[in-house]
Order: sequence, then structure tokens, then C-alpha cells
Amino acid sequence: MPARPAHPDLRGHIIPIGGAEDKVLGRNILRRFAELCGLERGRVVVLCTASMDPETPDRYIELFRNVGVGDVRVCDPRVRQDADAAAANLDGATGVFLTGGDQLRLSTILGGTAIARRLRRMNADGVHVAGTSAGAAFLSEHMIAFGKEGGTPIAGQATLAAGLGLTNRLMIDQHFRQRDRMGRLLSALAYNPFAIGIGLDEDTAGFIGPDDVMEVVGSGGITVVDAAQIEHSAMATTPEGRPVELIGLRLHMLVHGSRFDLKFRRASPAPVVVGPG
Amino acid sequence: MPARPAHPDLRGHIIPIGGAEDKVLGRNILRRFAELCGLERGRVVVLCTASMDPETPDRYIELFRNVGVGDVRVCDPRVRQDADAAAANLDGATGVFLTGGDQLRLSTILGGTAIARRLRRMNADGVHVAGTSAGAAFLSEHMIAFGKEGGTPIAGQATLAAGLGLTNRLMIDQHFRQRDRMGRLLSALAYNPFAIGIGLDEDTAGFIGPDDVMEVVGSGGITVVDAAQIEHSAMATTPEGRPVELIGLRLHMLVHGSRFDLKFRRASPAPVVVGPG
Repeated sequence: MPARPAHPDLRGHIIPIGGAEDKVLGRNILRRFAELCGLERGRVVVLCTASMDPETPDRYIELFRNVGVGDVRVCDPRVRQDADAAAANLDGATGVFLTGGDQLRLSTILGGTAIARRLRRMNADGVHVAGTSAGAAFLSEHMIAFGKEGGTPIAGQATLAAGLGLTNRLMIDQHFRQRDRMGRLLSALAYNPFAIGIGLDEDTAGFIGPDDVMEVVGSGGITVVDAAQIEHSAMATTPEGRPVELIGLRLHMLVHGSRFDLKFRRASPAPVVVGPG
Repeated sequence: MPARPAHPDLRGHIIPIGGAEDKVLGRNILRRFAELCGLERGRVVVLCTASMDPETPDRYIELFRNVGVGDVRVCDPRVRQDADAAAANLDGATGVFLTGGDQLRLSTILGGTAIARRLRRMNADGVHVAGTSAGAAFLSEHMIAFGKEGGTPIAGQATLAAGLGLTNRLMIDQHFRQRDRMGRLLSALAYNPFAIGIGLDEDTAGFIGPDDVMEVVGSGGITVVDAAQIEHSAMATTPEGRPVELIGLRLHMLVHGSRFDLKFRRASPAPVVVGPG
């Protein structure tokens, strides 16, 4: 369960990113996150537990410094035994960034530790939490742990696990277009249609504000699957490996500037930009 | 425009198949088509123009004989100049089957010829017309000629062409799950949301009756995208290569036994089969 903020409008942003965010040119997503975190007055802590690449911490330290964050630190517990002690590294952060890697490293190493509790509390109190790729999958209460590729849902295609729990409204998938994941997102929703499925393309993020309105930032799209009005899910009776019947989903393809209100389940188009002349 | 039948309920079935239909074991789709066509009293004409494989005609002759069709013939014009003369081969058919291959061969060789006119007239008068893979794509008024893979729609991703025109209600795509074609189907619909998009997995067919109710037959799924209630399509203003914003689509994942009413745009789940004990 997400921690309850004293004032709901104080919650920090929740920012799932579809992986492979631009780190070279526009860096729109990282810049936007850095601005939210206060730039030179901000402190961003990079949580690297998902990654097995030893260069990940230094890479993100440099990146966040380059987009203007005054104080960048690393929190990098590699085993569960270090997680409680490492929680202190989060102190004073205005933003926390979870790197990519394997979301099951995040859930198995951090689940139930002081870091997980602290992250929920901090986010409820106004600290922004972003995650890319595996880091994005982990943000929600229900996490797609792994699954097979393919456009249509197959029973048993997606394996769910408990995630960090900053929100329980979402089922998040990433590298969406690039790895053909519509089927696994749909099969995850088919178990229990209460959640909203969001499939994030690479270099694309959803900036979810304290009002639970998500704004799309980046060069790709976000596929939103809303199962609230679903008339039928055959998941309970579909044998493993067979396609799953689902009737009455709503689908939106959102791009940079589009918004989606997670509370009222309403999409709004990107504002039309009028150029000179 | 589809030819107008004297009595609307006399129209033959229109049967798009997602390709790679089972030719060895259950052969459910081919059997069902053979039954519709009258089995031993029927005459099925196999139209092979899409295919460049010289074994295609003999293969389908044997297949349809094996599932009980009394009279199986081939119509196989290879160039446009032969198409008008070959139209006589369709005489007396109770069913016509369009093989796979390249749908642009079908439209460039048969479009505007006596064969295309005859097929529309025959279907309107009660002859069943099935097509697999390229043959399925060609059945509708608007045909996806080709396009790139990927789960989310990109401007310019799908190239449309005029098809045979047995129905104008549908935009048909095939090998759907197997070739990751959700994006190209969505981008085809984004141009003009009046049509209903159907994405057929392999070994899966939609049997569309004279009442415009489609029944799903086969081992895969049919993805139905209904854009009738769409609130916004950004296709007019999206530069080529960029993701297309689409808000308010309806999505259904249908399986063997599911039905979709193309007139009223309503999906119904497959009947629950109660086994012994």
C-alpha cells in the first residue's frame, strides 16, 4: 500500500521511463526530472541495485551533473543484508532515480527492507521517484517480473510479482514497442482488470504528478490499456499457452505532451504547437 | 463498393484467415470452409495469383479434396492480360479460396478485371470467399499493402491500397501476433477511423456471415480495434516516422468461438463448453 501523505498534493512525482532514455542529445526526460528535483539546489540519489554493470553508478552521476543537478549520490546495496544500512544514503534527496537492469533484483534485494519503506514514505512526502526499464517496472504495487514477447495475450505469458508500491493504479511495461510486449501487458491485466496498463516505448516517460495526472515526455509513445469497462476476461478458464479472450478494453496511444488522468481514466491530446509563420 | 445482393441474407461468407492455417491435424478452418461450400456437392476454386510457389495449386487441391470437397479447381492467372479470360474458371463455384503470397500481386493483377468484378458479384449472390494471409488482406475495400513491424503506430508505417472490396467495414491484418503488427494496424486506422481493424493470428479465421457477425475459428486470437468512438487522431499532423497519438479506441481480444457483430460493433464471448463430469 502506498504511504499516505499528510497533504495529498505534496506527493512527489512518480516517473516510469521505458528504458534507453536519451543520454546524449536533448536528454528531455533527464532534464525534466532534474528540474523537478531542484537543479543546483537538488540532491538526486541513484539507486543502482537492478544493474550488474559496474559503470552504471558513474555514468548516471555524470549524466545528472551534466543536466544541472547540484548534488548527485549513489545508493547501491548489492545484497539484501546491506539494504537496511544503505537506506541512510537516501537522506536529504529531492529525487531518487532507479536504474535499469533486472526488476527481480530490485524486488528480491529491496523488498521489505528499510529502503523500500523509506522510498514510499519519501515519495508520499514530496520526493520525486523515477525508474527506467527494470526501475520503471518496480515502481508499482504489481510488477511484471518477466514474460514472453508477442502481440496477443496468452495464458501464463506474464509473471507478476509484488513491486515497490508507490502506486497500485498501474501495471507498467517498458521497451514496449521495441520488444513487442502488448500481449504480456494484456495478459497481466487479464488476471485482474482493476489496474491501468501502461506500455512505455524507449526514451519515453510518464510524469505522474500528485494529482495522478500523467504527462508523456519523450520521443516514443505510451500505450494505455484501460480495463475498467471490461465486459469479459476469460483468464480464469484459459489453459496455459492458449490465447486469452478479453472484451471491452479501452486503448489510447499517447505521445509527447499527451496527458492521462489516472483517477478519472481520461486521456487528453497534446496541445497543438503553433510555429512561427 | 461491395455489389448489392438481391436479398441481403443471401450473401456468402467472407473469411479472412491469418495465414499458416493448420493443414495437417484438425484443419478446423479448412473443414469449416469446406462444409459451408457443400462438401461433396460443392465446388471450390483456388485462386493462386498471390503465390509464386509452383506447388501451391496442387497442395490446395489435395487439401480441399481431403476435407471432403467434391470438385476442386484452380484459377491461376499470372499476368493481368490473362485475368479477364480466367474469370470463366470461377463459374459454378460454391466457394473461392485465395491463397497467400503477396497482396500487391492480387491487387495489381486482378484489380479492375473481370475476376474482381465476378468475385464481388458471386459473394453478393451467396458464394463464400476465403483468403489466407495475402489473400485475407485483399478481401476488404482498404488493404494494408505493406508496413513495418512494431507495437505502437508510427506515421508512414502502413501503406494502404485499394483491395477487392467484398466489405468496406474492415481493415485486415494477418500473421498478427507472429509478426508484431499492432502498430501498423493502428496506423492504418488512424488515417480514417471509420473501419474496424482486425488482426488475425496464424491458424485463425473470422467467418463473417451474411448478417455481418464474425465468428472466430482457430487456435490463435483475433485482435479487434474499434475506432468508432475515437476522440482524437493526430495522423494529419504527425511527421513521418513519429508516433501517432490516438485517444479512445476500443480493443477486444477474441478467441475460438467468440463473435463480433460488425454492424453493431459488439463482441460476445465464446460459449462456455461444459465437459463430462
